[in-house]
Amino acid sequence: MKGVILQQLMLETVLSPALFPLHQSDIETKIVVVIDILRATSTICEALQQGAVEIVATATPDEALTYRSKGFLCAAERDGVTVPGFELGNAPQDYSRELVGGKSIALTTTNGTRCLRMSTNAHQVFAGSFLNISVLASYLRREQKPVLLFCAGWKDKFNLEDTFFAGALASMLAKDFPSDCDATLAAMHMWELNKDRAADFLKNASHARRFQHLQRETDIDVCLRLDAAPVLPLFKDGIIRNLSENMVDFDA
Amino acid sequence: MKGVILQQLMLETVLSPALFPLHQSDIETKIVVVIDILRATSTICEALQQGAVEIVATATPDEALTYRSKGFLCAAERDGVTVPGFELGNAPQDYSRELVGGKSIALTTTNGTRCLRMSTNAHQVFAGSFLNISVLASYLRREQKPVLLFCAGWKDKFNLEDTFFAGALASMLAKDFPSDCDATLAAMHMWELNKDRAADFLKNASHARRFQHLQRETDIDVCLRLDAAPVLPLFKDGIIRNLSENMVDFDA
Repeated sequence: MKGVILQQLMLETVLSPALFPLHQSDIETKIVVVIDILRATSTICEALQQGAVEIVATATPDEALTYRSKGFLCAAERDGVTVPGFELGNAPQDYSRELVGGKSIALTTTNGTRCLRMSTNAHQVFAGSFLNISVLASYLRREQKPVLLFCAGWKDKFNLEDTFFAGALASMLAKDFPSDCDATLAAMHMWELNKDRAADFLKNASHARRFQHLQRETDIDVCLRLDAAPVLPLFKDGIIRNLSENMVDFDA
Repeated sequence: MKGVILQQLMLETVLSPALFPLHQSDIETKIVVVIDILRATSTICEALQQGAVEIVATATPDEALTYRSKGFLCAAERDGVTVPGFELGNAPQDYSRELVGGKSIALTTTNGTRCLRMSTNAHQVFAGSFLNISVLASYLRREQKPVLLFCAGWKDKFNLEDTFFAGALASMLAKDFPSDCDATLAAMHMWELNKDRAADFLKNASHARRFQHLQRETDIDVCLRLDAAPVLPLFKDGIIRNLSENMVDFDA
């Protein structure tokens, strides 16, 4: 007589989009959390928190602009700066309630929106950031699906800030999702050892150095505000909406 | 009148073979250090230290076997174990002076030999490990070329032990090779914080857990012996030889 084998819930971390192809097996069973801390996924959380109705993630600035005639706000960032001709770039603090409340947004960024689009075969895809870390962790614990933390990096290269966040989220989930993935272990280690000096740690990051150059250093502090935007940005059919609100609808 | 601009010596770290294509620009000017701590590059250092004359890095076990008729020792490892029919696998402690002294070896491993072969367009390619870290650091300081630390990982995935070593070598070189590469910063950080408990740290690694399964845990201690094999394993035209000995020849 065979015993019942409970399948262990797995949590993996992908340190760069270039490594994502290695994690495609059973992707349709997994919940993917796309992580682009500076700044796409932080901005997405902030936009939904400030009342944006939906965010369409487009591949290119030109594609984003096609939404202008439908009344969308158009947001585009390339290489860390707002693309000329766009109302918005990729800085969370620009997404005020006055500007984005009740609005639809078309957004394209260098790394983050691309990773959302790469993950479409997954069971579900969320945008993760420090702004929504606790609500995301609660959701993942409740769902009991394998989890893939997908660091957007910078143009396919590894970066510190996305891995740092992956470590934070993996640490919150460690009890329910033990991981034997080296990338997760390294990320958790990075988080545990630097969590009390997060801003200083990230100011060492190459991306942060780019920000200093671009005079956007305050973006780092904005993107480290823990649970400042407790939303669940679900990416589905090319559009990001807050799942929390949908769930309220379901309960009604 | 233009001032003289001294080019900054760069050091980059590649965390996985899947990320290597991002580091091809000016590859012909760079010295690549291939890192496969558990165990290919540790084994290569040990073999040369024990008097092996040359090591041919082959792509497949079958290719390695074609060298048998030429009097080579044949070594092959796949998935952590010696391939049946081969005299040697990939454990440094098996490469005794009695067995390998004065011999030529044909070697193929899951990750390390593949990375050597991927690096052939570089200015020079070396095998790096804790067994030869200091002599390697001295050589790189003297050569004054840009350096690429190339972690072999495990089947294209990130692993802890190779990144840990990259951090050790980058730390030794930090004064001469300031790096603004996030992967290098993360690796140096991992090294600095765990260098006093290296074996314990690596026993957490997924690869080490594979070793426990394969009852080869002592391999970790063998591969952590600092400067136990002070050789310079230069990979050129498919063959690894000890550059130190060549240099002695040149001086003679």
